[in-house]
Amino acid sequence: MEFLERLKWRYATKIMNGKKVEQEKIDNILEAIRLAPTSSGLQPFEVFVITNDEMKEKIKEVAFGQPQITQCSHLLVFAAWDNYTEERINHAFDFANEVRGTVYEGWENYRKSLLSTYPQRDREINFQHCARQTYIAFMAGITQAAFEGVDSTPMEGFDNDKLDELLEFKSKGVRSTLLLPLGYRDLENDWLVNLVKVRKNKEELFTVID
Amino acid sequence: MEFLERLKWRYATKIMNGKKVEQEKIDNILEAIRLAPTSSGLQPFEVFVITNDEMKEKIKEVAFGQPQITQCSHLLVFAAWDNYTEERINHAFDFANEVRGTVYEGWENYRKSLLSTYPQRDREINFQHCARQTYIAFMAGITQAAFEGVDSTPMEGFDNDKLDELLEFKSKGVRSTLLLPLGYRDLENDWLVNLVKVRKNKEELFTVID
Repeated sequence: MEFLERLKWRYATKIMNGKKVEQEKIDNILEAIRLAPTSSGLQPFEVFVITNDEMKEKIKEVAFGQPQITQCSHLLVFAAWDNYTEERINHAFDFANEVRGTVYEGWENYRKSLLSTYPQRDREINFQHCARQTYIAFMAGITQAAFEGVDSTPMEGFDNDKLDELLEFKSKGVRSTLLLPLGYRDLENDWLVNLVKVRKNKEELFTVID
Repeated sequence: MEFLERLKWRYATKIMNGKKVEQEKIDNILEAIRLAPTSSGLQPFEVFVITNDEMKEKIKEVAFGQPQITQCSHLLVFAAWDNYTEERINHAFDFANEVRGTVYEGWENYRKSLLSTYPQRDREINFQHCARQTYIAFMAGITQAAFEGVDSTPMEGFDNDKLDELLEFKSKGVRSTLLLPLGYRDLENDWLVNLVKVRKNKEELFTVID
């Protein structure tokens, strides 16, 4: 099945039918998120997979009552590192050396270069950079969901501070960026399901410099 | 071909062989970018497709001399809106009405809600929000490239201000966020091509709350 077809099939599902998504499909969606590219391969985020009904209710309260949050099968919460620290950078580079079973000079020089710039930078700039990486992984998750025939709703609209408090993110050193309810579209009740997908014409979006 | 396989196949190509990418493949990559989801469907960015050798050379100069910029076939430059304006929001909503051939009350209320919040917000906050959306479209482009058997190099490392000046982005109301050289890996000379892909274990990345 082609990716372009899958992009046309998917849409920001507004009403879900409560059906549970099979664990294998969830595993594949998480695997796509895990394999997504990130800046310097640091994967500066964590993803929380929420199936607990009580927790979903609480999250819905800090997310303008959006119904998909409780109608969905699994709710993914993307949370970016609140900062780049020496420890986090070293952990990532050490882990890469462990996996590769060897130490490359170029890789170690690159570690030094990051260590000499990232931890010294303003905390908010670092968080914003980490936050952007979650959008790449987010799209990987949306894509794999579409290939699995699983619907999803990309969501930025929620009270980040309240969600961070609810999930005790401060103590984990992360801050919420995105929500992704996963489930199945309610064909009878979702007002968006039959609306035409609107995208700008390519002439408006692309400029060729040849 | 499965997406997870394609994610394993792709890597941040360090050396490209200069071979030209077929126009059909480029068109499909741009189509994936066009179809990618964005916040409120506003698609707050433009993408510049650069094949001009002289321009590539100039861009390489403001991007730490990264060789893929001139070795690639097509260089994509992602540029986010520098701000959300009333005009831009109305244009997007009017276009959706035109495509759908009708006006929905809910959609018009949503327009009003955006018009009463976005243009009043700090310009930098708006740009950052637009910038994040380019990361979603970026991943859509990387994904379609992988399905086409086309290599790419996700790049954030360049001098944004100098690139914006070079491409006269200020007058276009956009600011550069990402580069994506598209081409084919140089199997003999790319030191990264045979290295093991390193990704965190799922236990480190995911937390289940059930």
